[in-house]
Amino acid sequence: MKMDRGQMALDQKQEIVGNSVPKIDASIKATGEALFAADIYLPGMLFGKILRSKHAHARILDIDTSKAEKLPGVKAVVTWRDAPDLKLGMYTDDWQFFAKEKVRYHGDIVAAVAATDIEIAEDALALIEVEYEELPGLFDPQDSLKLDAPLIHEDRPGNIAATRKIRKGDVEKAFASAEHIFEDTYQTQMVDHCPIETHASVAQCDSSGKTTIWSSSNAPFNNRFLLSRGLQLPMSKLKIVLNNVGGAFGGKQDLMTEPSCILLSKKSGRPVKIVVDREEEFTASTVRHPFTMTYKTAVDSKGKILARKIELIQDMGAYNDLGEGVLRYASLMAAGPYEIENVWLDAVGVYTNKQVGGVMRGVGVPQVSFAGESQLDRIAEKIGVDPYEIRMINALEEGSVTANGQKCVGIGFKETLKAAKKISGYEWKSKEKNRGFGIASMVYSSGAAGRHDYSSAVVKLNEDGTVVVLTGAPDVGQGVRTTLAQIAAQTLGVKYENCWVEAPNTDISPVDMYGANASRLTVVAGNAVMSAAMDAKRKILKRASEKWQVKEEDLQIVQGEIFHQGQSKSLGFFKDVVMEMHRPYGQTTIGTGDCITTSVPMDPETGQSEAVNIFVFATHVAEVEVDPETGLVKVLNIWAAHDVGKSINPVNIEGQIQGGVQMGLGFALTENIITRNGKTLNPTFLDCKMMTAADMPEIHPIIVEVPEPKGPFGARGVGEATCIPTAAAVANAVCSATGTRINSLPLSPEKVLSSLKMKSSGKKTN
Amino acid sequence: MKMDRGQMALDQKQEIVGNSVPKIDASIKATGEALFAADIYLPGMLFGKILRSKHAHARILDIDTSKAEKLPGVKAVVTWRDAPDLKLGMYTDDWQFFAKEKVRYHGDIVAAVAATDIEIAEDALALIEVEYEELPGLFDPQDSLKLDAPLIHEDRPGNIAATRKIRKGDVEKAFASAEHIFEDTYQTQMVDHCPIETHASVAQCDSSGKTTIWSSSNAPFNNRFLLSRGLQLPMSKLKIVLNNVGGAFGGKQDLMTEPSCILLSKKSGRPVKIVVDREEEFTASTVRHPFTMTYKTAVDSKGKILARKIELIQDMGAYNDLGEGVLRYASLMAAGPYEIENVWLDAVGVYTNKQVGGVMRGVGVPQVSFAGESQLDRIAEKIGVDPYEIRMINALEEGSVTANGQKCVGIGFKETLKAAKKISGYEWKSKEKNRGFGIASMVYSSGAAGRHDYSSAVVKLNEDGTVVVLTGAPDVGQGVRTTLAQIAAQTLGVKYENCWVEAPNTDISPVDMYGANASRLTVVAGNAVMSAAMDAKRKILKRASEKWQVKEEDLQIVQGEIFHQGQSKSLGFFKDVVMEMHRPYGQTTIGTGDCITTSVPMDPETGQSEAVNIFVFATHVAEVEVDPETGLVKVLNIWAAHDVGKSINPVNIEGQIQGGVQMGLGFALTENIITRNGKTLNPTFLDCKMMTAADMPEIHPIIVEVPEPKGPFGARGVGEATCIPTAAAVANAVCSATGTRINSLPLSPEKVLSSLKMKSSGKKTN
Repeated sequence: MKMDRGQMALDQKQEIVGNSVPKIDASIKATGEALFAADIYLPGMLFGKILRSKHAHARILDIDTSKAEKLPGVKAVVTWRDAPDLKLGMYTDDWQFFAKEKVRYHGDIVAAVAATDIEIAEDALALIEVEYEELPGLFDPQDSLKLDAPLIHEDRPGNIAATRKIRKGDVEKAFASAEHIFEDTYQTQMVDHCPIETHASVAQCDSSGKTTIWSSSNAPFNNRFLLSRGLQLPMSKLKIVLNNVGGAFGGKQDLMTEPSCILLSKKSGRPVKIVVDREEEFTASTVRHPFTMTYKTAVDSKGKILARKIELIQDMGAYNDLGEGVLRYASLMAAGPYEIENVWLDAVGVYTNKQVGGVMRGVGVPQVSFAGESQLDRIAEKIGVDPYEIRMINALEEGSVTANGQKCVGIGFKETLKAAKKISGYEWKSKEKNRGFGIASMVYSSGAAGRHDYSSAVVKLNEDGTVVVLTGAPDVGQGVRTTLAQIAAQTLGVKYENCWVEAPNTDISPVDMYGANASRLTVVAGNAVMSAAMDAKRKILKRASEKWQVKEEDLQIVQGEIFHQGQSKSLGFFKDVVMEMHRPYGQTTIGTGDCITTSVPMDPETGQSEAVNIFVFATHVAEVEVDPETGLVKVLNIWAAHDVGKSINPVNIEGQIQGGVQMGLGFALTENIITRNGKTLNPTFLDCKMMTAADMPEIHPIIVEVPEPKGPFGARGVGEATCIPTAAAVANAVCSATGTRINSLPLSPEKVLSSLKMKSSGKKTN
Repeated sequence: MKMDRGQMALDQKQEIVGNSVPKIDASIKATGEALFAADIYLPGMLFGKILRSKHAHARILDIDTSKAEKLPGVKAVVTWRDAPDLKLGMYTDDWQFFAKEKVRYHGDIVAAVAATDIEIAEDALALIEVEYEELPGLFDPQDSLKLDAPLIHEDRPGNIAATRKIRKGDVEKAFASAEHIFEDTYQTQMVDHCPIETHASVAQCDSSGKTTIWSSSNAPFNNRFLLSRGLQLPMSKLKIVLNNVGGAFGGKQDLMTEPSCILLSKKSGRPVKIVVDREEEFTASTVRHPFTMTYKTAVDSKGKILARKIELIQDMGAYNDLGEGVLRYASLMAAGPYEIENVWLDAVGVYTNKQVGGVMRGVGVPQVSFAGESQLDRIAEKIGVDPYEIRMINALEEGSVTANGQKCVGIGFKETLKAAKKISGYEWKSKEKNRGFGIASMVYSSGAAGRHDYSSAVVKLNEDGTVVVLTGAPDVGQGVRTTLAQIAAQTLGVKYENCWVEAPNTDISPVDMYGANASRLTVVAGNAVMSAAMDAKRKILKRASEKWQVKEEDLQIVQGEIFHQGQSKSLGFFKDVVMEMHRPYGQTTIGTGDCITTSVPMDPETGQSEAVNIFVFATHVAEVEVDPETGLVKVLNIWAAHDVGKSINPVNIEGQIQGGVQMGLGFALTENIITRNGKTLNPTFLDCKMMTAADMPEIHPIIVEVPEPKGPFGARGVGEATCIPTAAAVANAVCSATGTRINSLPLSPEKVLSSLKMKSSGKKTN
């Protein structure tokens, strides 16, 4: 039925934006024709493997690669000696491509090998002799923060990687006079992005000094920026090519393989491929940061929130990487989607000798959403207000001011609450035993928050009036190429099928710095494409106005035909004007456009600023059934109401919601990367317990459309929001079903059972 | 020494334009790293072979592919039934991708096969049963023109493919009163382009309908235009990708393999590669059209040319293809580089059942140059004027009007004559026995003549201030990527090494319709790149002017630093301004530009118009020694003086001259594709007698620089001119050495010997 809707749109010649046209790459993915980075084969290509640290924390005394180099078939071995000796990072320069003096977690790269086949490369790893002096490891941020803790980075006192503050109003004054004060501490676990395609790249450094990298990246321009610095290569010598990418969720911008590939290719003079295996993906890729979150909230008797004081401790892992950005996002959104006069937040990111946290769908907000929304439910319960009502009472609405002091314009939060309640049939107290509804909401940003976000685009018209869009926006499976084709087609008034969106390649694509992150592409790359398409359109209409002696501003293009205002018969075809410009006039049409957002950095002392580009809101309602014998939580339904502004492709958005809820449920119930002394113990799909299709409840996407003034056709980006409120909604539903509340994720059967036992034994659990 | 000059330029921070910087792809070609179309391997790729006609002219009664289809390993067989049933062509729609009712020459494609390996594909060809009804063949244009000749194309009466006229002044009146009238007929032979890389392509049609072709083309946009028409595919579904191309000389735009590859890929659902073998390259690729040329020339007693009446008969081969363009060029330039008041030309292109003529370096002008310059020498000899002087007397100069009625502006023809004479030590009559000097000149066009020529470009600045140039200009070995990088670097004031020029790909590159043809890229693509670079530069200087509060127009960029007019200390670095625009301002810099030439079509009745974009002139002097015993002509020296306007890369131009002269010498002395009943008899490198390095004389490139007002930095394109006057210079030298003149090419030992014998027996040869 969904495909029919898309086909119907095309048949009936309706608008393109707003219709579920088939994804540009749907058929090649369905048939297996789509090529991914691991599918690249080049003449003479070698296969690489990476040697990672044996210890969570150790000094490197010596690396001897001589035996490995002598193994027949080995063509190159590289260590820190083969790269420029410098540290770098996205926020803080604390990381080196190859570990030099120290290793700081098990994923640290010590050496890499390229050989004629992968087995030889693996054998060679075993021949590399590394002499370590083991150091005491820190595996809990609380330990890292102790005054006598060893330093993971000698130049980072207190093992503190990053801090963030928000100061709005006077929380202490508000607490002093409040009727109710609640204070709770919540914890979230480490989870992996679990992309179906693991990190992979192929590098080819040729004798002219040009390096080409085929990569599984979700942010090729950001990668080029870092690689250019780290390898001291001008960007014109460094080309990153994307084919198809098999899922990213924020995790594919980490340079897991690229520096090794490049240095091995440079040293061997041959192309080198490295495909990370699943265990390595689990143990050495970035993860979602575990958070410890203390919320102290004051409310009045009706449930109006008067003040919130929040302390966040982020387990950064061994390096800062993108963690500082995650802390910023968590801090910005920690107070929740509510208007609160007094907010105080202190957040700290702390180094440990564990896997490095990166950005992962939601960027810190799934964590704070779990904390804030769990507590809000507890408050509602305690003061006897329906959890739905307490959200309505406090909800940000038109003109509200957020915790970072930003005024809300054109938002649709309450609409998501109302829609979710209405469609789900939500009840505060379920009539059925062991069953319950839970509700949770969230606020997020579309477009990078706390910095300028930007993207540019080129729209090129072929001689026959068909269109090529050049963008740096990476399609990692989320469908952005389809979205951008729809935006270009709609803007130009041409058919969707005639718009091709080229996959990014840093040499040919206009810059899109931050890639598939921050729910930014629909709005930031989308606006850039729209602007470039308008530029191209202006050129065509100028020619048309000369041709037909009419005013440019009176012309419009509809379904490939050019109309003069008010006339029902078209003047002619768009494609004919384009062709005529080519022959005989020799005029080509290239439109350029860009988008620069107004978002700016947060004030370091108060957090106050216009940090958010576009606010995004959502409300999830979960209905669960808890088995009191086993503690197993069965989610029956999830209703996910998202204000998307304008749904450019409804089926695609529904797909995003389905996928987001799947991740949210795994975070809520099952997924957990377990480490002991920094070593990951369950690096497999079986043991990480990602939700599979068979585990999924009925998901009911609810699309709310309150037009966003800054979005193309009123659209907001919704990629990440879809996974954020799920965990809290499930936790709240479990509490509703059982009367017990669990303050840490995942809500495993063990925890639920233990909580039920405590309750039946009369101990306080909520 | 030549490389040193390039290095010196970089070391001394001299201007970039005018210096012999190393070619952008020099090292990867030297090392063998460069990938060509034949080097592409895709997963599941099949190998294709093409079945060509058994006859020169025959009706096809039936094609039975059933046995071939059943051969194990064969995955697809295609014939005309698999393509849209339509005819098409560059000028005239007389050609079908696959022959349907008739075959018209041995190269006509009847079927194509894709199989799991090339041997199976070859075996399958033998299993295809084609029932022919043989038809009488026409192998000489004179036969084709006979009233009772059979028609090769039923809808082309008289077997006439194309005609062209020039009418200037009144030739009959001039002849009536002239002191001397000369009438001679000249003939040139069929020669092949002989690229070292044969035609090759790989096509991949995926299930989304997108077709990607990796091709050895020298004009990908022109190919896309034709393929889009012939396959009825929107251009947005058709991507042609160029890697490196191993020589083209005009012959690589013919769709030898692409339609077969695409249809086989579509039918099999797998990628298909076809690499033409050397025999197929010789027998089925396009060739230089044989011409029969009758020149009637009137001169006064001092050698001033009063009138020229010219008749050209072009052996078109089986299809028009680009032949009509060749006839246009030959006609435009037939009168030679001289101001002649009365010119009359009738030219006709005639179908035969032979290999199809295409464009080949010089596009018809090597032929007319041989005729016109041979005759001019004969005239000079007869009336007792030094051949050098007769050229000086008649030479086009500033303000002269050409045969097509176009005024010459900023030309340097006489400078080439003077330089060639001076440097060569040219003597009218050699003092040494059996030795002689010959001189010959030519006029050509840079940029497509007789139509609008156009190209567009994008110049993208990376965050670190390095540059990417996007152009549709194909580098087929001539070095245009290097030239364009130099133009971009010089215009922007940045380092040459920091400018990357991406190889064309029709999806990503701005349109450059005519490709590596017509000596157009340096001027047409060059101007487009210059204009795009200036657009990018303006954006940077605008930001710089805001930053430093100075006027934009007072700023300039030199060697990567931004200077305020009149100050010796720079304000700062270009790269820092670019980076600052990115971060924090989020501004990307993309410059666009294009070039549209003023050249227009020739009037069909008179040939009068501003048909030529830029006039190019050259003079070659040859010194030869003829062995009277064997008739063997040994070329001792060639001095090649070319007015290049401005030599953007002197070593590259010298290389063009060396290569052009090599082709000119082969045309003059040895190369000859011999056919019997339309079948090529010598389809091998051994038998076609292309000149090798061992056969080459000393070549002395002489670079003349009279700035061209319309060229970037004053440059003209010189790719083709380099091969044009060589044959006439050699023929004139042979005549000077022996006193005998041969009016047909090549000047084989047999002909020379027979001519010497006739002379010694007292028969008239001149």
